[in-house]
Amino acid sequence: MTERIKGILSPVLTPFKTDYSPDAERLVSHCRWLLANDVSLAVFGTNSEANSLSENERVDLLERLVEAGIDPRRLVPGTGCCSLPETVRLTSRAVKLGCAGVLMLPPFYYKGVTDEGLYRSFAETIERVGDKRLRIYLYHIPPVAQVGISLSLIDRLLRAYPETIAGMKDSSGDWSNTKAVLDQFSKAGFDVFVGSETFLLANMRNGGKGAISATANVNPGNIAALYREWTSSAADAMQARLDSVRNIFGKYPMIAAMKRAVAHWKKDEDWSRVRPPLVEIASRESTRLIEELKAAGFDMPGIEDVSVRQMDQKEGVQA
Amino acid sequence: MTERIKGILSPVLTPFKTDYSPDAERLVSHCRWLLANDVSLAVFGTNSEANSLSENERVDLLERLVEAGIDPRRLVPGTGCCSLPETVRLTSRAVKLGCAGVLMLPPFYYKGVTDEGLYRSFAETIERVGDKRLRIYLYHIPPVAQVGISLSLIDRLLRAYPETIAGMKDSSGDWSNTKAVLDQFSKAGFDVFVGSETFLLANMRNGGKGAISATANVNPGNIAALYREWTSSAADAMQARLDSVRNIFGKYPMIAAMKRAVAHWKKDEDWSRVRPPLVEIASRESTRLIEELKAAGFDMPGIEDVSVRQMDQKEGVQA
Repeated sequence: MTERIKGILSPVLTPFKTDYSPDAERLVSHCRWLLANDVSLAVFGTNSEANSLSENERVDLLERLVEAGIDPRRLVPGTGCCSLPETVRLTSRAVKLGCAGVLMLPPFYYKGVTDEGLYRSFAETIERVGDKRLRIYLYHIPPVAQVGISLSLIDRLLRAYPETIAGMKDSSGDWSNTKAVLDQFSKAGFDVFVGSETFLLANMRNGGKGAISATANVNPGNIAALYREWTSSAADAMQARLDSVRNIFGKYPMIAAMKRAVAHWKKDEDWSRVRPPLVEIASRESTRLIEELKAAGFDMPGIEDVSVRQMDQKEGVQA
Repeated sequence: MTERIKGILSPVLTPFKTDYSPDAERLVSHCRWLLANDVSLAVFGTNSEANSLSENERVDLLERLVEAGIDPRRLVPGTGCCSLPETVRLTSRAVKLGCAGVLMLPPFYYKGVTDEGLYRSFAETIERVGDKRLRIYLYHIPPVAQVGISLSLIDRLLRAYPETIAGMKDSSGDWSNTKAVLDQFSKAGFDVFVGSETFLLANMRNGGKGAISATANVNPGNIAALYREWTSSAADAMQARLDSVRNIFGKYPMIAAMKRAVAHWKKDEDWSRVRPPLVEIASRESTRLIEELKAAGFDMPGIEDVSVRQMDQKEGVQA
């Protein structure tokens, strides 16, 4: 069996053109910068505005990424939709393209559904995809999806499909839940990723495998560094620095704020656009966000590809 | 301008085959029974398990209904999805098929979104569909969608698109909200449908236009009768009888319970099937439900088409 993915993944921000269509070129460029920073690609996560994309748009973007040379072994696309046929189609496409795994939301429209119903959803998806290469990371994000993944559901799925059910992303924001999952399942080969780098060190110290975190879009290098060096004596100080950056973004609507930061540091205003029902952050808030980030010493080294080349050329001329 | 739809509509239950694919024939048959009972067709509502259907399945079913001779002027399909392109495509198809209107959920994955973001979603949909025939009924169902339609959002949409924004379905279960909407907008030609017949009489007495109610799937004739006779002296007693039936179904998971009742009275077990993440009600509960309904004098006259014909033939032989 091939080795499973681990480390830091980013729910990659999805750039949009003026007509709100997904901008595949800018997406590829952002993915390359993340990979260069040792961060893998959980495209089509919550912070990717993936739930504002159609099934066809997701399939198209995934194919464009692989065609552009992005290594599918670094890709864990989100494929969980409200409807079984859409989840099956997206998941099948991801497996056939060679993706490391898929991040799967439970069907999230109907509330108060039973574990039996959720079990049937996941089981039916696995049976229909019918591919031994499939690796599913269950996506637990009750603050948004409202429908969550209980410990007993994990237990039942893991018993029925021990090879396929590879792990989870816990975005509950509740460490006691993450700890319970780790204690009960990590030794059975169930890989736990926390949904925020806030819990990265705690997760690693308790048998977890990494983080799939929004702010890995903007602070990838430093988060990946803590993953690599979590056993070092500097780890707690590194964690504290990550937290201070995260806390700044956390004061604003997260997706719009991260896109604002990319637009600023990449000097590319098109990056700030979000698709309805989200809205960009207001001008005054934008200014404050950037000031706060600068005051905290925040930077996005290397993201401004074009300018970096221009600088090199200037230096060449001066030399 | 053509007259707008009013009266009683049912979020039509969607029957599924053994492989969970939608059963267009059984759906057509159920629609015909509802129409015969003076109930129009809000196909693809919450109780239709529409959010467990893919975009393609909805388009296909809608076309099958119209091909089967269902009058599109009696159809108000649900077309609101999480993503703009899917909402636009479904809505466009409904308009081109001549549907009376569409019932539109707000995009419901992202929580805590602003009215500005929701306004952009609806406005962008209207602009993209770009058809003067479009009539939108806003779908307010915060207990399930979590994302609701505020009075200020209605106001803004109505000012911008007075012809297109035709009304709403209020499934908040909160009469004070319905009353506020009626008071503020019904005189401006905004048609309010309550989401349960429990509020039918109150709605009619305050300027509303009818109900779009789950239990109109199983108790259509009696609900339609109260709509026709709401000004009669018998209206309060009729409302009380409707409530007693509704209360029985309300004790069980509603969709599974209604499908169970159709299966029983139609003598067609296939009708009881639900798509994951929903589950059928357990055997013991099924028995209790049917007993309670029978004890309350509940019936579904005419739903068992085949048996009705067989009885006629028998009577013919005996005569």
